[in-house]
Amino acid sequence: MKHRNNSHTTSPIHDYLQELHRQFAGVKEGDLATYIPELAKANPNWFGICLVTATGAVYEVGDSRQPFTIQSISKPFVYGLALEDNGRAPVLAKVGVEPTGDAFNSISLDPGTGRPRNPMINAGAIASAGLIAGRTVKTRFQRLIDTFSLYAGRELSLDDSVYASENETGHRNRAIGHMLRNFDILTGDPTPTVELYFKQCSISVNCRDLGIMAATLANRGVNPVTGKQAIRGEYVESVLSVMASCGMYDFAGEWIYNIGMPAKSGVAGGVIAVLPGQMGIGVFSPPLDARGNSVRGIRVCNELSRIFDLHLFNRPGVGRSTIRLKFSGADVTSSRVRDTRESQVLRQFGVGIQVYQLQGHFTFATAEFVVRDIFDNLAAIEHLVLDLKRVLSINESACRLFLDLLEKLSATGRTLLFSYSARLPLLRRYLKAKLGARFTALFHAYEDNDPALEWCENQVLDAHLPGRTPDRSCERADYELFVGFTPAEVELLSTLLTRRHYQRGEVIINVGDEARDLFFLARGTVSVLVTLDSGARKRLATFSPGMAFGDMAVLDRAPRSAVIQADQAVECDLLSIDDLDSLGHKHPAIKIKLLENLSRGLCRKLRKANREISVFD
Amino acid sequence: MKHRNNSHTTSPIHDYLQELHRQFAGVKEGDLATYIPELAKANPNWFGICLVTATGAVYEVGDSRQPFTIQSISKPFVYGLALEDNGRAPVLAKVGVEPTGDAFNSISLDPGTGRPRNPMINAGAIASAGLIAGRTVKTRFQRLIDTFSLYAGRELSLDDSVYASENETGHRNRAIGHMLRNFDILTGDPTPTVELYFKQCSISVNCRDLGIMAATLANRGVNPVTGKQAIRGEYVESVLSVMASCGMYDFAGEWIYNIGMPAKSGVAGGVIAVLPGQMGIGVFSPPLDARGNSVRGIRVCNELSRIFDLHLFNRPGVGRSTIRLKFSGADVTSSRVRDTRESQVLRQFGVGIQVYQLQGHFTFATAEFVVRDIFDNLAAIEHLVLDLKRVLSINESACRLFLDLLEKLSATGRTLLFSYSARLPLLRRYLKAKLGARFTALFHAYEDNDPALEWCENQVLDAHLPGRTPDRSCERADYELFVGFTPAEVELLSTLLTRRHYQRGEVIINVGDEARDLFFLARGTVSVLVTLDSGARKRLATFSPGMAFGDMAVLDRAPRSAVIQADQAVECDLLSIDDLDSLGHKHPAIKIKLLENLSRGLCRKLRKANREISVFD
Repeated sequence: MKHRNNSHTTSPIHDYLQELHRQFAGVKEGDLATYIPELAKANPNWFGICLVTATGAVYEVGDSRQPFTIQSISKPFVYGLALEDNGRAPVLAKVGVEPTGDAFNSISLDPGTGRPRNPMINAGAIASAGLIAGRTVKTRFQRLIDTFSLYAGRELSLDDSVYASENETGHRNRAIGHMLRNFDILTGDPTPTVELYFKQCSISVNCRDLGIMAATLANRGVNPVTGKQAIRGEYVESVLSVMASCGMYDFAGEWIYNIGMPAKSGVAGGVIAVLPGQMGIGVFSPPLDARGNSVRGIRVCNELSRIFDLHLFNRPGVGRSTIRLKFSGADVTSSRVRDTRESQVLRQFGVGIQVYQLQGHFTFATAEFVVRDIFDNLAAIEHLVLDLKRVLSINESACRLFLDLLEKLSATGRTLLFSYSARLPLLRRYLKAKLGARFTALFHAYEDNDPALEWCENQVLDAHLPGRTPDRSCERADYELFVGFTPAEVELLSTLLTRRHYQRGEVIINVGDEARDLFFLARGTVSVLVTLDSGARKRLATFSPGMAFGDMAVLDRAPRSAVIQADQAVECDLLSIDDLDSLGHKHPAIKIKLLENLSRGLCRKLRKANREISVFD
Repeated sequence: MKHRNNSHTTSPIHDYLQELHRQFAGVKEGDLATYIPELAKANPNWFGICLVTATGAVYEVGDSRQPFTIQSISKPFVYGLALEDNGRAPVLAKVGVEPTGDAFNSISLDPGTGRPRNPMINAGAIASAGLIAGRTVKTRFQRLIDTFSLYAGRELSLDDSVYASENETGHRNRAIGHMLRNFDILTGDPTPTVELYFKQCSISVNCRDLGIMAATLANRGVNPVTGKQAIRGEYVESVLSVMASCGMYDFAGEWIYNIGMPAKSGVAGGVIAVLPGQMGIGVFSPPLDARGNSVRGIRVCNELSRIFDLHLFNRPGVGRSTIRLKFSGADVTSSRVRDTRESQVLRQFGVGIQVYQLQGHFTFATAEFVVRDIFDNLAAIEHLVLDLKRVLSINESACRLFLDLLEKLSATGRTLLFSYSARLPLLRRYLKAKLGARFTALFHAYEDNDPALEWCENQVLDAHLPGRTPDRSCERADYELFVGFTPAEVELLSTLLTRRHYQRGEVIINVGDEARDLFFLARGTVSVLVTLDSGARKRLATFSPGMAFGDMAVLDRAPRSAVIQADQAVECDLLSIDDLDSLGHKHPAIKIKLLENLSRGLCRKLRKANREISVFD
C-alpha cells in the first residue's frame, strides 16, 4: 500500500483508475488507423481514462486532455439531433434500427427500400446527417457542433487537417452518399451531406469530453457537470438503444453480454460507454484491433464493468426505498399546541391521519410501490398526507397513478393532501389538466407538513369534540397554569398581572431579548417562529387563549431563542420575573402550585417530543 | 367514471390492465400456429395479461390462468441453467451471443466451428439443452422443470400430448441435433438432447406463471412472490443479455428500440418482458404474426412500455437518494445523559462527529456518491458513523469502496464506525478477508447508533475535559437538583432521603408502577429501557452519579412508562412523594428551589429534544 501514502485524501475511485491505467498501459497490441495520414501520426502510448457520474463527479487519469478526432463516436449524437429535428417516425422511415452482424463499413442497405439497416454503420450515419436541419452545410454543422459542445460542456472545434484528409480520401463514403440519393434516402445533391458527415467525424475532443458526453446520455440528456440540456430526455432511450444493439458492429452481442453498457467506438481510438442513470465512461488509446475498436479501450471497459459490477442488467430493485418514513397523527402533530383534552383526542383518533414521506425519483415502479402500500393500509386511513419534500423527480406515469389514488380516496370519502408539492410542477399541471373543474376542490396542496397536519387534526377534533371553540377568549380563572388554584389565589395573582395588547403581526418577543416576563394568553393566537438557514421562516408553535408562553427562558434565565408574534389582535397578561421571585417569599404555596403546573406542562411537552423522536429515529 | 364505481378500493394498476385488456381484446389479426395439431386447437380469443413487480405484487387480468405450453420462452431459462451447470466460458465455447438478424428457425451455425450464433435460435437452444447436467433425459428434465417451478413459484408439469406431437414431427430439430453432433457441439447421441428440448418446450404454464418467471429475472433471480432463488444472481445479466440482443429474432433491434425490455416469445402465444429491478410482464394470446410473435402480446408490451414509460434506457439517476440524513454529534447525542459541562463541550465540539444515515441498495454508483460526499466534507470529520439500518443490499464493489474509505480515514487518524452492520454480512466478510490481522483494530461495528455515538462522544469529552470522572460516586451536596442549596438545606433534605442499594441488572422502576419516589443517583449508572414492538430492548437514557431520575412521573403523577435498571452495583437516595408534598408546607423555600432546579432540567431536556426533532424532521 506504500504508493498510496500521499493519496489518503484522494478519492478511492481516482486511485482505481490510476491502477487500471498502470495495468493496461503496458498493453502493446493493436495498430493505428492508417486510412488517412493524420490518424497514423498518433502516439500509440497515448492513454486516458475518464469516468463521470450522473451526479456530476469527474474522475480522469492519464492523457485525458489529449485532443483527437471523435470519428464514429459522433454517430449516436448526430442520430439524437436528427430525432430532435424530425421526430422518431420520419427518422425511422429513413434509417432502421436492426443490427447487421456486419462490419462498420458494410453498406447494409435494405434491398427493397435502400434504407440503411441502422444509424451506427456509415450508410446510416450519413443518412442521419442528411436529416440535420439547416439551409447550408455551414449552418447545419454549426448546430451540430453546438450540440456536441453542450454534451461536452465546453466549446468544441473542428480539426481542419483531419477534415481535409477525410474529404480528400473518402471515396467509399461518397459512393454511399450517391447510393442513398439513388434510393431517395438523401434528397438533393448528396455532396453537402457527405461533407457534413466528414466534418462531424473531424470534431476534436479529448477523453474527458467523451466521459462527460457519455454521462450526459446517462443523465437523461442533461450534462451533469454544467446542468445544461444537450438532448431532450425522451430521445435518449432511442440513442442508447441503437448504441446497445448496433454500436459495436458485429461485436454488439458480445459487448452487451460481457460489458453490459451501450457503447460506441471511433477509429481515432476513443470509446464511450453509458450506464443509464449512473455514469458515462470515456477511454482514449489509439491502437485498434481487427474490428476497428481501441484495444485498451475495450480492456478498460471490460475491467471496469467486471470490477465495479456495472452490467446494465444487474440492477437491484427500485421500489423499497421509495417510502422514507410513515407516521400517524397520533405520534406526530402539527405545531399547533393543543390543550389537554384535544391532545387526548389526537392521541386516540390521530391514527386516521397518515403521513407518507416519499423520496427519490417517481416512475411507474416506485409509484406503484407507494400506491400499493396505501391500498394495503386503506382501512386505517382517513386523511393521507403525501410529503414530497425529498422527491427528486416525477414522470407522467407516476402522476397518473397519483391521480388515480386521488380519485379513489376521494370517492371513498378520504382526503389526500400533498405537502411540498411546489417541488413538482409537473404533478400539479397533470392533475389540473385531468381534473378540470374539480381540481380546486380535490387538490389540497400545502407548503409543508405542518399546515397539512393541522388541517387534518382540526377535522379529527371537530368530529370528536363537537362545539369546541379553540380560539375563544379566556378568563384568568381558566389559564392552564392556574389549574387547582382557589378563586382567592387567582384574584391575588391577578393583581400581579399586567394586561398588554398587540396588533396582528406585532412581535411580542424577539430573539436575544432578555427574559423578563411570563406570558398568559387571554385573546387571539400567537406563533413561535425561527428563521431557517435557507432564509425561510418556520413555525415552531402556535398557542391558543388560556396557554402560557415564554416560560422556558423565564425558568432557565436564558435569552429568548425565537420570535413570538401575534397572529391576530392579541391580549396577554404578563407576570414579571421580579414578581415571580417575590411571590416565593410572600405566597410560597401559590408559587409552588405555579411551578408544579409549569413543570407538568414541560413534562407533557417532553413526553410528546420524545415520542416524535422515536418516530423519526 | 361510472364503470369504476365498484372499484374504488382496487389498485389503479389493476384497472389499467383491465382497460388494456378491453382495448386489445377486439384485435383479430394473426393466425394460430399449426405446425403441430395441438397448438391449432387453441382458442384465438384467449387473452391474459399479468404484471408482477420486483417487490412481489401480482396484477393479472383476463385468461391469466389458462394453461398453454411455454415453447421458445423456455430457451432463456434453460440457457441460465446451462450457465449454472457449466460456468460462462464453457457455455460460450458451445453457443455464441451474437444476433443473427435471421428468423427463429434459421440454423445459423458458425461456418468454421459449427457453434450456433446464439441460444435463442433453435440450434443454440438445443446446444444449451445439451449442457444441462444429469445422467439420463429423465434426471436432466427433472432438474430443468424443478428450476422452472422455482421461477414460477408452483409445481409445473409436462403437457404430454404436445410433447408427443413435437417428438413426432420435429424433423428439422432432429436435423439440427445431428448437425450439432457433427461439429461436436453436442457429444454422444444427439437424440436424448433433442427429446429434452422437445420436453422443455412442452412444459405447461399460464400467463401468471410467465409474469412471475419474468419478475424473478427482474429481481436478480429471486422469485419475488416466494422469496426463493431460481438462478444465481450473477447469471441473470447473461440471460437478459441474450434476450435483449437475440430474444425477438430479426425483430430484436426494433423491440429494444420501441419497447426497451429484454423479451422472449413462444409459438403458443406467450410473451415475457423483463424490466430489471422493476418488473416482469407475461402476456398470453395465441394468434401470431408472420414472425411467430403473439400479435396482442406485442401490442400489450408496446402499450405498457409507452404508457408507463418503462424503457430500459430511460432511467433516473440512482445516487442522490442514497444519503437519507446527515447530522452531527452537536445536534444529536447518544442516550447517555451528560452533565451541564459535558453538554456544553458536545455542543461546541460534537460537530467532529458526523453520522451518515444510508439507505437503499449499495452498488458502485450509490457508494461512490456517499464516499465522494464524505471526501468533500473530510475537513469537518473526526469520527464518522455510517448508519446502515436502511441499507437493503450491498455488492462487492460497494464493499470495496467502503474498505478504501476505511483505510483512508484510519490513515489520517479518523475513526469510521458502522452501526447496524449485522444487516450486511457480506460487508463484514469482505472487510475481514481484506484487512486480515488489522480487522479487529479497524472494524468498529455497533448494534445501533446509540453506542456508536456514545463512543465518539467519550473521545471528544476525554480530549476536551482531561481528567473527567463521569462515573465517580457522588456526595449529596453534589446532586444536580441541590444546586444553589446551602449546606444546611442539604443537611435538612438529607434527613428525608432513604438510601437504597441495587445489584447489577436489578430493576429499580418497572413499567406501570405507581410513582412513589424521586431518585437521586449516588453511585453507579442506571439505564432507562423500553421494549420495542420488535421485542428488542432499546435504551432511552443512562444516568450518572449526581443526576436525578424518575422525576417526570413524580411531577405529573402518571404511572411509570419505562423500566429503569441498575447497570452496575448502584446506590440511590429516594425522596418520597409524601415527603416532597410535606416539604412544601414545612420548608417552602427549599421546595421552590427544588422545583426550579427540576424545571430547569426539564427545559434543558426539552430544548435538546426540540433540536433533535428539527434535525430529523
